[in-house]
Amino acid sequence: VGKGRTMQKWMIFGGGGFLALLLGAIIGGLIGHFGFPVYEYGHLTRDADLGITQRIINEVDGDNIASYLKHLSAVPHVAGTKYDYEQALWVKDQLVSSGIDDVEIIKHKVLLSYPPNDNPNQVQITDPAGLTYNFSAQQPVLFSPEEGHPDINSNFLAYSAQGQVSGDVVYAYHGRPDDFKHLEDNGVNVTGKIVLARYGKIFRGNIVLEAEKRGASGVLLFSDPKDFSPRGRNQVYPNTVDLPEDGVQSGTLLLSDGDPLTPHYPSIDSAYFDDDSKMMRELPRIPAQPIGYKDAEYLLQKLGGKESPQEWKGDLTTDYKLGGTFVEAGTKLTMDIRTTREVKDTYTVIGTIPGSVEKDRYVLLGNHRDSWSLGSIDPSSGTACLLEIARVFGKLAQEGWRPRRTLKFCSWGAEEYGLIGSTEWVEQNRKILEKQAVAYINVDIAVEGNYTLYAKSVPMLYKTVIEATKKIPNPNPNEVTEGRTTIYDTWLKNSPSDGGRPKIYGLGSGSDFKAFIHNIGVPALDLRYTYEENIGSYPLYHTLYETYHLLSYLYDEGMAFMKSITQLWGEAARILADSLIIPFDVREYASYINKTFSEVESSYKNDLQAQDISLDNFRNAVAHFDQQATRFLDIEKSVDLQDPLAIRSLNDKLMLVERMFIDPLGVSDRADIVNHILFAPSIKDTYASVGFAGLTDLIEAAKESGAAEDWENVKKHLSVIVFMMQEAGNILTSI
Amino acid sequence: VGKGRTMQKWMIFGGGGFLALLLGAIIGGLIGHFGFPVYEYGHLTRDADLGITQRIINEVDGDNIASYLKHLSAVPHVAGTKYDYEQALWVKDQLVSSGIDDVEIIKHKVLLSYPPNDNPNQVQITDPAGLTYNFSAQQPVLFSPEEGHPDINSNFLAYSAQGQVSGDVVYAYHGRPDDFKHLEDNGVNVTGKIVLARYGKIFRGNIVLEAEKRGASGVLLFSDPKDFSPRGRNQVYPNTVDLPEDGVQSGTLLLSDGDPLTPHYPSIDSAYFDDDSKMMRELPRIPAQPIGYKDAEYLLQKLGGKESPQEWKGDLTTDYKLGGTFVEAGTKLTMDIRTTREVKDTYTVIGTIPGSVEKDRYVLLGNHRDSWSLGSIDPSSGTACLLEIARVFGKLAQEGWRPRRTLKFCSWGAEEYGLIGSTEWVEQNRKILEKQAVAYINVDIAVEGNYTLYAKSVPMLYKTVIEATKKIPNPNPNEVTEGRTTIYDTWLKNSPSDGGRPKIYGLGSGSDFKAFIHNIGVPALDLRYTYEENIGSYPLYHTLYETYHLLSYLYDEGMAFMKSITQLWGEAARILADSLIIPFDVREYASYINKTFSEVESSYKNDLQAQDISLDNFRNAVAHFDQQATRFLDIEKSVDLQDPLAIRSLNDKLMLVERMFIDPLGVSDRADIVNHILFAPSIKDTYASVGFAGLTDLIEAAKESGAAEDWENVKKHLSVIVFMMQEAGNILTSI
Repeated sequence: VGKGRTMQKWMIFGGGGFLALLLGAIIGGLIGHFGFPVYEYGHLTRDADLGITQRIINEVDGDNIASYLKHLSAVPHVAGTKYDYEQALWVKDQLVSSGIDDVEIIKHKVLLSYPPNDNPNQVQITDPAGLTYNFSAQQPVLFSPEEGHPDINSNFLAYSAQGQVSGDVVYAYHGRPDDFKHLEDNGVNVTGKIVLARYGKIFRGNIVLEAEKRGASGVLLFSDPKDFSPRGRNQVYPNTVDLPEDGVQSGTLLLSDGDPLTPHYPSIDSAYFDDDSKMMRELPRIPAQPIGYKDAEYLLQKLGGKESPQEWKGDLTTDYKLGGTFVEAGTKLTMDIRTTREVKDTYTVIGTIPGSVEKDRYVLLGNHRDSWSLGSIDPSSGTACLLEIARVFGKLAQEGWRPRRTLKFCSWGAEEYGLIGSTEWVEQNRKILEKQAVAYINVDIAVEGNYTLYAKSVPMLYKTVIEATKKIPNPNPNEVTEGRTTIYDTWLKNSPSDGGRPKIYGLGSGSDFKAFIHNIGVPALDLRYTYEENIGSYPLYHTLYETYHLLSYLYDEGMAFMKSITQLWGEAARILADSLIIPFDVREYASYINKTFSEVESSYKNDLQAQDISLDNFRNAVAHFDQQATRFLDIEKSVDLQDPLAIRSLNDKLMLVERMFIDPLGVSDRADIVNHILFAPSIKDTYASVGFAGLTDLIEAAKESGAAEDWENVKKHLSVIVFMMQEAGNILTSI
Repeated sequence: VGKGRTMQKWMIFGGGGFLALLLGAIIGGLIGHFGFPVYEYGHLTRDADLGITQRIINEVDGDNIASYLKHLSAVPHVAGTKYDYEQALWVKDQLVSSGIDDVEIIKHKVLLSYPPNDNPNQVQITDPAGLTYNFSAQQPVLFSPEEGHPDINSNFLAYSAQGQVSGDVVYAYHGRPDDFKHLEDNGVNVTGKIVLARYGKIFRGNIVLEAEKRGASGVLLFSDPKDFSPRGRNQVYPNTVDLPEDGVQSGTLLLSDGDPLTPHYPSIDSAYFDDDSKMMRELPRIPAQPIGYKDAEYLLQKLGGKESPQEWKGDLTTDYKLGGTFVEAGTKLTMDIRTTREVKDTYTVIGTIPGSVEKDRYVLLGNHRDSWSLGSIDPSSGTACLLEIARVFGKLAQEGWRPRRTLKFCSWGAEEYGLIGSTEWVEQNRKILEKQAVAYINVDIAVEGNYTLYAKSVPMLYKTVIEATKKIPNPNPNEVTEGRTTIYDTWLKNSPSDGGRPKIYGLGSGSDFKAFIHNIGVPALDLRYTYEENIGSYPLYHTLYETYHLLSYLYDEGMAFMKSITQLWGEAARILADSLIIPFDVREYASYINKTFSEVESSYKNDLQAQDISLDNFRNAVAHFDQQATRFLDIEKSVDLQDPLAIRSLNDKLMLVERMFIDPLGVSDRADIVNHILFAPSIKDTYASVGFAGLTDLIEAAKESGAAEDWENVKKHLSVIVFMMQEAGNILTSI
């Protein structure tokens, strides 16, 4: 929307000087007398106040961010514990004192999971003589006093099955289907065995599932120093950001999202809590436990069996045998896991600044509040930014400025367990969000490195994130010296894509945007600052060592990158909340769909042809959407910018576009519940994002089984895609 | 909304006389010069033009209606035949020539069903000597030449199973569960027998289902003269509106709605047509056929077995034995049914008059176009009214008037088979209708008697239908003489309710409003003029004798009642399409919910208590909705009527209320697919409407089975109701 087009007529009038003023006074008198509405509703068609961008940039304060972060990361704040509620109250207080108009705390009663701290989970190796080596049950205090907080949990994986298992161990590398296939091809059977696998490639829940499917009796997960301590095991926290030998990555094993006791419906007090839901039936049936690499090394050294491929070898002092036997017969590993599953209360805080013109349109900013331990990075870095951007908007609101649309600041509970707070809240508010939510902007981890921005987005928001990044000053002085003055510049340099612009990733699952984009079709964006290396996470992810020290000293001294993310978050929200026309880019969507269709076509054309399944309808529907997206640009250009209802109507249509790809019946019959036919994450790795994964998952399954029924499922889903794509195209030019 | 409140300021100004005019001119000059928007967008907040009501009343023309009806009922126009398409084209032509802006024909490819006319279905009785008596396969020509049209179908029931069955016959009265229970209690087993049942109490599909569930081998349905020829079998068509002895009621046996090959998704060319869908699996597995009462009498006279209860006896010359044996051993009845199931094209016509202010808000007027034979009443009486009201609105539009919101005139295909055209169209346009449809007004049969108006409505539309009826002149001159000058007056007198106003019925299923209200929560209204007697239908319903003669001579000479329905339809649509504030009455909704809750509570409190199931949450949620509805009135009253976005926002909220009761996952796991937790028809009789039938069906099932699992289903559904009711209340006062 060009500035000229949206300039208000009263501005022209206002420029008329003294004469105008005089006439204005006369007319004002007439208005008073006759009461007709001259200027009264001009604000309805006012475009964004662009001066606010600079205000946001200037107002964001690093000391505030640091102080929020320090408070949040001083104690472990695991969902369902007393700290969950305490920090919810504290977040509420911060929002209230920042001038946010309305702040509420929402309770959800959900299934969570804890380790038995009075009698921690045990993993031990017994040698032939009956002597035992006990794996560490706890991560040691290394630097910050709060690492010794009495309520830090002992090591566990949420929702692990309980039980004692013992026997041989098989090393399964990253625990992917192909890794298990390699074992099988080499005659290594995991049935009845304990699987030892490495973090770093796929979601831990998928590793345990793959092991369970193959009959494993238990799973141990560790982080190899090759991936997590690349500088060597002496160059680790608290001196570097790398993983010490007893550091352990906690995490959930839940493959679905939201409270598994209440699929589809919110976990409010009156809910029906279903012990036998599909989600409950898909919880792990075998025990699983994370271990440090010191213990993994001890274990690997004792493994017998075949050589593993070179690629499977890490940096531990061992030759990474495949196992299945121990070097010394009579050795065995025993896991005694007592991790609980308990119904607990978790809390979500929602603060609202009502819009000045369209209160009933929401731009939501969200971050989860719960951590596994002290959580300075995940998620408290994001929480600190949320509180600071809320403070800035609260201040602007108190000064009289308000965005056109409502801003909502969301502090989610129990994300770590499986996106539970956000999922339950979306389930609870589904109807109103479907109707009223414009976009959702997530910051989970705000800063996990200082190399480049890392943005995940739906195509319709590419324009917004690019526009916003071009305005945010570069937090890296070296980059500024090189002439890259904005975070956009560094992003473009350090994370380029083919198209001459920065790479923007797709939204898989794995954070609180999931329910918004994948269940109800609210366009979503996820922002963070990240590291250079292409590993699965920053080294201390989900460990005890996510301390204030880690973030404020080792990653982001002076909170420069934290400030940038806060500014960017605020500016992206401002663009979406304040622009007269919502800046969704449907052409970008069409391009994305074209590209994704081509990928599907080139990957599967032959398989489909062999089954007599034609992609013609799909291709035509994609082309139709493309044409309609182009036609829509003309409609957008010709809208009467003085007519508030014409603008609302156009915006309503823009909001509908993403919703058109939502199948209320769900994509496939899967426990994690996804409804977006285009962006649904693949069942093979819920972290990843590939296009039309609902379709490609079905094709892969049919190829594997060869069953006619499975190919029928492919045809059926294909027909749904074609229908939805056609209708999505149709609405762009319909009235 | 009172007139005073909504009067525009420019009207006051306009009332200022000469001085104002002068000042207006000056100001006009200023506007020209400085270009600020004085009146330009005043139309956005203009309330309804009340003068249009009288225009509608005056314009509706009986001769036009008669001429439309004559054309439509000159040929049989069964869905999927060449007449389906011909009449679709003709309807389109009428709409185009009436000045409707945009008219489109939509094709759906759906499963239909036909009799084998070259070799009609046979029913015969063979006596011990081997002599056969053949039941009539065809209804004879009695009066109008078109009754002899070569494409009139022989007798059949759509979707009957094919097959030849023979044996004994059991008389099952109306074929309700209680009727079968009576048979059972009297030792009459229907397993392997052919069931003879009477039309008039429940949907024929439910009769066949009940018989099939009990192992019957076939079903014959007839209409007893006691119900359908109360003046005696010589006082029938063409002299009266009553059923002659060879008249046969055709109809569908489909228990679900929409094309059974494509549940949930539209039957477009690219659809996946699923032979094994849940709906397909619920099609009848036994043959069924309708017969005339002459043949039923012949059969009943031959039945042996026990006496039937007095109530079961009708007006045929027989003592209505329960059967199970024949009087003469060796007698048998044989049914040879070859009714097909075929995929055919059916057509829906949609004509659109875009609104002047809110094009993207739809008020839809709909009627189905397909009949079983000549269909003068069902549905062509409604089609004639649809064409006439479209003509009137088209004329007004051409003269320059347009309603605020868009009007859509819908002529549905294949309703008779199971609401197929409307269901497929709603499935196809689900997203846009959920967002943009304000209300749906159905007229299926327009006139089936001249006693009183018969309205079915959601509570939120009571106000609209009452307001409209008070404006429509009474078509009955005798009533006018008695001082009852409007159709409201006669309605109030002839169909009173306890509350001092006319009785308004609930919307069960059975016509095209179903997908609107029960699947996507669009408030719906159904209008017709009806008879006095409380029987299941007018006597000639779905027979060959629904001729132009029947309607234009025996029912409504001069088309006075047809005119009234047309006027009422138009006025109700005008109110909804043109009022600044959509006149949905949320207080009425709250009252309805209170009443319905009380009914559920008093019916089932003890059963639920015995299972430790509390209604407290339900009661609280109902009370909450009630309070919120009252609070909403204040919000509605305080809205700024000069602010077009405030009005839009309020209207959006009003539109959301009904949607809040829609469960996207469906109410229970039933093949007919209903989503409205409050209005869903009971599975026991899809014609009927009872409140919270999803819940009461589950309670009844649990009481019958006594299974713990069934009581868990009750609890689960109860939790969904509570949640939805709470949120429905919440949105009323949320931003």
